[in-house]
Amino acid sequence: MVPHLVPRWPVCLFRWRAACTLGACVPQSAWAGASRTPGPGSPRGAVGTSPLVRRGGSSSSSRAPEVMLTRERYPVQRLPFSVVSEEDLAAFERITPGRVVTDPEELEASNVDWLRTVRGCSKVLLKPQTTEEVSHILRYCHERNLAVNPQGGNTGMVGGSVPVFDEIILSTALMNQVISFHGVSGILVCQAGCILEELSRYVEERDFIMPLDLGAKGSCHIGGNVATNAGGLRFLRYGSLHGTVLGLEVVCPAPPPQVCTLLHPQVLADGTVLNCLTSLRKDNTGYDLKQLFIGSEGTLGVITAVSILCPPKPRAVNVAFLGCPGFAEVLQTFSTCKGMLGEILSAFEFMDAECMQLVGHHLGLISPVQESPFYVLIETSGSRAGHDAEKLSSFLEHVLDFGLVTDGTLATDQRRVKMLWALRERITEALSRDGCVYKYDISLPVERLYDLVSDLRARLGPQAKHVVGYGHLGDGNLHLNVTAEAFSASLLGALEPYVYEWTAGQQGSVSAEHGLGFKKKDVLSYSKPPAALQLMQQLKALLDPKGILNPYKTLPARA
Amino acid sequence: MVPHLVPRWPVCLFRWRAACTLGACVPQSAWAGASRTPGPGSPRGAVGTSPLVRRGGSSSSSRAPEVMLTRERYPVQRLPFSVVSEEDLAAFERITPGRVVTDPEELEASNVDWLRTVRGCSKVLLKPQTTEEVSHILRYCHERNLAVNPQGGNTGMVGGSVPVFDEIILSTALMNQVISFHGVSGILVCQAGCILEELSRYVEERDFIMPLDLGAKGSCHIGGNVATNAGGLRFLRYGSLHGTVLGLEVVCPAPPPQVCTLLHPQVLADGTVLNCLTSLRKDNTGYDLKQLFIGSEGTLGVITAVSILCPPKPRAVNVAFLGCPGFAEVLQTFSTCKGMLGEILSAFEFMDAECMQLVGHHLGLISPVQESPFYVLIETSGSRAGHDAEKLSSFLEHVLDFGLVTDGTLATDQRRVKMLWALRERITEALSRDGCVYKYDISLPVERLYDLVSDLRARLGPQAKHVVGYGHLGDGNLHLNVTAEAFSASLLGALEPYVYEWTAGQQGSVSAEHGLGFKKKDVLSYSKPPAALQLMQQLKALLDPKGILNPYKTLPARA
Repeated sequence: MVPHLVPRWPVCLFRWRAACTLGACVPQSAWAGASRTPGPGSPRGAVGTSPLVRRGGSSSSSRAPEVMLTRERYPVQRLPFSVVSEEDLAAFERITPGRVVTDPEELEASNVDWLRTVRGCSKVLLKPQTTEEVSHILRYCHERNLAVNPQGGNTGMVGGSVPVFDEIILSTALMNQVISFHGVSGILVCQAGCILEELSRYVEERDFIMPLDLGAKGSCHIGGNVATNAGGLRFLRYGSLHGTVLGLEVVCPAPPPQVCTLLHPQVLADGTVLNCLTSLRKDNTGYDLKQLFIGSEGTLGVITAVSILCPPKPRAVNVAFLGCPGFAEVLQTFSTCKGMLGEILSAFEFMDAECMQLVGHHLGLISPVQESPFYVLIETSGSRAGHDAEKLSSFLEHVLDFGLVTDGTLATDQRRVKMLWALRERITEALSRDGCVYKYDISLPVERLYDLVSDLRARLGPQAKHVVGYGHLGDGNLHLNVTAEAFSASLLGALEPYVYEWTAGQQGSVSAEHGLGFKKKDVLSYSKPPAALQLMQQLKALLDPKGILNPYKTLPARA
Repeated sequence: MVPHLVPRWPVCLFRWRAACTLGACVPQSAWAGASRTPGPGSPRGAVGTSPLVRRGGSSSSSRAPEVMLTRERYPVQRLPFSVVSEEDLAAFERITPGRVVTDPEELEASNVDWLRTVRGCSKVLLKPQTTEEVSHILRYCHERNLAVNPQGGNTGMVGGSVPVFDEIILSTALMNQVISFHGVSGILVCQAGCILEELSRYVEERDFIMPLDLGAKGSCHIGGNVATNAGGLRFLRYGSLHGTVLGLEVVCPAPPPQVCTLLHPQVLADGTVLNCLTSLRKDNTGYDLKQLFIGSEGTLGVITAVSILCPPKPRAVNVAFLGCPGFAEVLQTFSTCKGMLGEILSAFEFMDAECMQLVGHHLGLISPVQESPFYVLIETSGSRAGHDAEKLSSFLEHVLDFGLVTDGTLATDQRRVKMLWALRERITEALSRDGCVYKYDISLPVERLYDLVSDLRARLGPQAKHVVGYGHLGDGNLHLNVTAEAFSASLLGALEPYVYEWTAGQQGSVSAEHGLGFKKKDVLSYSKPPAALQLMQQLKALLDPKGILNPYKTLPARA
């Protein structure tokens, strides 16, 4: 059970506890094929207050209690879109023959989000296979004034991926072909419906990795990742999709439906081509149109294909799990490791003592290090195992010598790496077993990251069962969670708008990586001023003049 | 003179020639304070044909021959903007007291580009110090229908940074304050007129580096870098500014002048604030508006402040200069080094044999390696010198064993590193001494990168003196240059549109990193289809409805 220790690792100062208890007996989550539990970037939006979230798993089995319809639960009015008619269904059947789904049972899974907190009542789901079909569909829907809900893997956190009312669901599930992969440059071009984990496998076989990794990778589609500007576990190392996405093919509903082929320059029969599907690292010819669609949550266009730059596959991955005596030491450890680990640092996550108590209490996981006020998980990825081990060893000696870290353990083989990651990744699951969860996904200047947690703990007192903070510290991304025995309006009132105002006071973001979708669209103004919102509305009107694309999402309703 | 060789470096296979001859007696270029000669990303646009380019330097001394006015040299019509009146000057004096320049001699340097190929006839240059002043100026100019030419360091390659007619020059030169730097996250926030080299010095003192580096760094402004989406020498490692720029403050001329404060959320007196000047790594609240302005060449808004993520300063930098027997071997060397050097690889540049002949003939530089059909320059930047040296050593043994490289040399100290870089960076200078230069800056799929050079060499035959290819191979960016004794219309006819059509046939980009500016705006359609162009025009109309901002640039004139 003793992990492989690096040369000069000060063994005497570190203890290794039975990490084998990690992940032993807790049912796996409902992520189809996910190799990690959901929620490494885990707060589930500020819905939290919902007793509708099934605890301890997110199974969509037919036995799950029914989710209340969004239109009944939220004060939202249907916009005057047309209602799908028999003629419309016949037209769709001509566009996507045999791929028009109207069976209510089959539709149910696409009407409800995976968190089981929002539920639409769409009567039809379309499964196009080609960009041309998407173009036909959007042209038709634009002409008929029919609302459309683009859907990838339906793994979003903020209710952006399911209909609010009866929007037509446009699924990318059958658009799952790799178009090309370039073994020298590492540039992958694929359809939008490719599942992230399958793409990871595909490029890993060719000695590359995807530049992003998410807990939802077993289900999420690359098109959805791009549409939501997904962050995740590799963000610290490989950066934002705004940098790694090289090209997009997007169909816009504006008349005529425009295919932003940032990959293929051919003109499609049904729409004009906006060529943005380049496979080039550099292209400074005019405005970078694809950027508009990254993070637009399917409200400006339907992403049909993606060109993305894949980094070379690291030959060695190590994970250190450390205990820190205070948050100041967590920050100093981060600074130190940026300097000493430099180019091999690939993740810097933190969690507080209450998180550890929760994963211990609810999941039976045992901390591999001494009890500490804070824990950090540091991952390195490099091209030479020996070098990485030496760097880690020097770094660990340093942080121990300076009292930044009081205890720690190290994993170098894949199984132990996963066990240590589970401590961080399964916090979401532990929280969901702790009671009603109020969740926030916040970006803050890194030195103020934990102050919000401390402030809230003092503010809420015994109203809250637990107030915990964890997240992607390296990215300044706090996952703030509050649990209580049951939903309480007074607790919610103590939390909101306090959390949003606190965040705005620090020039933070009220949605670091999960987007706004349906549930958070009304808190946009805490992070963006009215003029920015106005420009967003103007862009929406330009690209989707009838507003048929993913309505009720991202932008607040106009007054 | 023998360089420090890494452990296990197969010395016997490598020869070290007197690199001390590098950079000996050639006059330094006119880049104020530049530590490198201009043009590491060097083609100067497709102007090339111009006998107006002064050879062998780009001095703007008063003795230089006068540059022909753009309006006389190019078929361009002045748009019906107002002409600056005495009342306007008085108004500007109220907005920027003592900082309204009308002296013709002082204006001359800002009316002519550094390549001395285009020349405007502006009568007034304004030097605002604050965003508020920029907002006042743009509001006034919008109301009066006065055209404005935003200008940073005036180091652009495509005539984007100087007026075409009498546009008011709005200089960011006095907006040169660092606003904040965060020592943990490495996030720098500064005004747009900060000079890149000064920022580099500032952050290096704090153990960070700027994520971009250019030959023009001694003059160029960070705002101009962002406005042109500058690529440069660190692109391979740290990626595009679309990924590293975290926030922008932009003033748009749309009524009312809107300040896109992606940094400061306060509302300015003169305009509405579009808050995009965040100092957060992650922010998924609504559309990422700042992306619109990155690479828009000052045609959508004036960037007044920038928030940018700085990587930690590497502790070791090594440069290897290698000879390769063919382009196939150059590509294999690139693939191999991506795998073996992985995370420490920071540049992969190439040049052909004719480039080496030119730097030898015109600048007296001597190749430090055996004569070869191709040369590559590989730079590594890492956190531990010993590890980097070992990785390089293993890599070099490998490429020698497999015959990918036939000779090479290595530099580890700063002086020798600069000497090797000079071989690559001074190609532009050597070309300018060789005759009339036709220059192209192309992105291509990396395996076709050199085919265009070979094709052209066959196509042009003795018409051309030299046809050379070099550039940022790691980014798929070819700098293609053709020299002749004098300008020849028939040679130009053989080059264009052939080069653009060839590039379009490979789904390449006709402007990889230099943008379109004034000189290349009409070749946009080779890399973008009509519908993309239409959307760009719509965005321009949305943000700058009167088209006063940097007119005649980036987008072709409407039919």
